[in-house]
Amino acid sequence: MSQGPTIAEIARAVGVSAPTVSKVINGRADVAEGTRSRIEAALATAGYQRRRATTVGGKSETGLIDLVFHRIGSPWATELINGVLSTAAQHQVSVILTELGGLSVPSDSWVDTALARPPLGALMVSSHLEAHQFERLKRRNVPVVVIDTDGEPPTDVASVGSDNWNGGLLAARHLIGLGHRRIGLVGGPENMLTMRARLDGFRSAHAEAGLAYRPELFRPGNFFVGTGYSAGHDLLTLPASKRPTAIFAGADVQALGVLRAANELGIRVPEDLSIVGYDDVPEATWVSPMLTTVTQKLPAMAMMATELLLDLAAGRKPVTTRINLTTELIVRESTASPA
Amino acid sequence: MSQGPTIAEIARAVGVSAPTVSKVINGRADVAEGTRSRIEAALATAGYQRRRATTVGGKSETGLIDLVFHRIGSPWATELINGVLSTAAQHQVSVILTELGGLSVPSDSWVDTALARPPLGALMVSSHLEAHQFERLKRRNVPVVVIDTDGEPPTDVASVGSDNWNGGLLAARHLIGLGHRRIGLVGGPENMLTMRARLDGFRSAHAEAGLAYRPELFRPGNFFVGTGYSAGHDLLTLPASKRPTAIFAGADVQALGVLRAANELGIRVPEDLSIVGYDDVPEATWVSPMLTTVTQKLPAMAMMATELLLDLAAGRKPVTTRINLTTELIVRESTASPA
Repeated sequence: MSQGPTIAEIARAVGVSAPTVSKVINGRADVAEGTRSRIEAALATAGYQRRRATTVGGKSETGLIDLVFHRIGSPWATELINGVLSTAAQHQVSVILTELGGLSVPSDSWVDTALARPPLGALMVSSHLEAHQFERLKRRNVPVVVIDTDGEPPTDVASVGSDNWNGGLLAARHLIGLGHRRIGLVGGPENMLTMRARLDGFRSAHAEAGLAYRPELFRPGNFFVGTGYSAGHDLLTLPASKRPTAIFAGADVQALGVLRAANELGIRVPEDLSIVGYDDVPEATWVSPMLTTVTQKLPAMAMMATELLLDLAAGRKPVTTRINLTTELIVRESTASPA
Repeated sequence: MSQGPTIAEIARAVGVSAPTVSKVINGRADVAEGTRSRIEAALATAGYQRRRATTVGGKSETGLIDLVFHRIGSPWATELINGVLSTAAQHQVSVILTELGGLSVPSDSWVDTALARPPLGALMVSSHLEAHQFERLKRRNVPVVVIDTDGEPPTDVASVGSDNWNGGLLAARHLIGLGHRRIGLVGGPENMLTMRARLDGFRSAHAEAGLAYRPELFRPGNFFVGTGYSAGHDLLTLPASKRPTAIFAGADVQALGVLRAANELGIRVPEDLSIVGYDDVPEATWVSPMLTTVTQKLPAMAMMATELLLDLAAGRKPVTTRINLTTELIVRESTASPA
C-alpha cells in the first residue's frame, strides 16, 4: 500500500536492521530511544505512511481495534460508536464491537480472545481492565484508551473524557440564573467519578450564588430512562413547598424519563418545571419541548480517543494521553424562569 | 476448549482422516454428502461442541462475523446491533461493525479486507452485495445473510426480514377501525421493496373497508426524523378539508418528526391527529403520547439472522434461508377516534 521507500531502504539509510525499523513502525518498546528517534526521523523524511495492517500467517490483514462497552442500547452509545467507526474507517481500520452486558470489567477470556487476534489497540467505554489484564495487553504492545472512564484509571492508562465538573456547574448556573431555588438532581451511580464531578460542579454553582445545596433533592440512579422516570416521579410528588421547580438529569434519556413523569402528573415543561439533560444526543431534539442540555461532544470524544489509540499503536508519543473535552450548555425549550 | 473427544478420536470412530472431520466442523463444502452425514452423526453423538474459531498462521483465533449497515445512527440500528451482539456472544463469536455511510453496496476493497481475515460470515443490513462480490465470498465459503433487505436478493442469498405487507395492513386497519377516513402515509424511499410492501398492505386495508386510497396523502422520504418532520408539516398544513386526521409513519423516529410538526402547529395528538409509527424502538415509549406502532421484532430478527449465518458457516443446511417474521400492532397512546 505504501508508495514510499521500503523498510529495507529505510534500514539502510539509518544503518540499522530491517527488523528494528519494523519494531519502530509497529510501536514496539524494545528499541533504544536514540535509535528510535533516528528511524522515526528517517520515516518522517521519507513520508512513510504506516500501513495500518498486520500480517498473520503470510496473509495481509487490515488492522482491527476492539471497542468495548459496558452497555449498549442508548443513544449515548450510538453517538460514540459512530465517532469511532468514522475515524477508524479513515484509517482503514476495522472495529470489533463488544458489550459487557452491564459489567465494567471484561472477563479474562475476553483478553485471551483479543490477544489471539491481536488488535492494534482497545477502546474501553465506561469500563476498564483489571491491572493484570492491562499488563497482559501492555506486554503485547496493545495500547488501551478509556473513553468516559467509570473510575480513576491508573496514570499509565490513556483516557478521553469530558469536563464533568464544568457540566454540572453550567447546568446549575443556568437554572439558578433563571431564578430557580429548589433544583433536583437525577443522576448516575453516586460513586461514579463522572457523577461525583458533576455533583461537585452543581454544588459549586449553588455556593457561588449563595444558595444552599439540597441533598434531599438528589436521586442517584443510572443513566437510563427508567430511573429518570422513577426519580422524576418521586421528586415531583413531593409536597408543593418542597418540590423542585427544576431538575438536572444525568443523561438526556433520563431527562426524557423526567419529562414523562411530569406529563403524567400534569406538570407543564417548562412553565411549571424546567429540565436540563446531559449528552446532547439526537433524541434531545426529537421531543417537545426540545431539551436544554449539556453537550459533552460524544462524537468528538470518540474520534479523539480513536486517533489517540492509533497514535499509541503506531508508537507515536502523544503530547498527552489524558484528554478532557470541554462541556457546553445548549439552551433549547425545556428551561424557563419559574412561575 | 472442547471437553469432548478430539477430532482424531472422531476420525478414528468414523473411519476417515482427521482433516476430513475438520472440514465438516469448519463447514467446508468439499466432503461427500454420505461421509459428511456420518461425521455429523458421530459429532452429535459425542456431544462435540464446535469451537467457533479458526486458526490462522498457527494462532488460535475466535471466529469473527462482519455486520454491515448502510447507515447507523438510529435506534432501529441499535436494536439490530444488540440482537446480533447477544447471539454472537453466546457462540463466542466477535462482531466487526461497518457502516457504509449511507451506501447500499460496499466497495470492492471492503470485500478484499473481509476476505483477508476471513470472517465466518457476513450480515448485510438494508444493504447488499453486487453479484461478483457475493461470488467472491461464496468461493471462500463465507456465507451472507441479508437483514431487512433493501431490494430483492437473488434466490441463493439468505435473508431475514419481516412481513411488511402485514405491517401496512395492520396500521391502516387500526386507523380505519377508529373511524379515520383521510390517512396520510409518510414513508421510506418509494422504490424500496419493504416500502412497496407496506404501501400495498395499507392500500389493501382501504380496499377491504371500501375506502379509496388517497395517493395525494403519501409522502415518500427516508426512515429518519427529518423527513418525518417535513412530510408531517406538509400534510398538516393542507386545507382543513384535505388534511389527514391520521398519519402512518415508516419508522418510529419519523413518527417523532410528525409529532414535532403537530406540536408546533398546535395540533393535539391523539385528539386532533392519530399517529402510528413502525419498528417499536425504545424511543417510542420515551415520548408523550407513547407511540402506537408496528413491531417488526428487530432484536429477534437480528438474533435469527445471526443464528442462520452461523448455521450456514458451520455447513448446516437450514430448512429455509428465507425468513420473514410476523409484524404486530402495539396500541399505545398516539391513536384515537377522530374528533
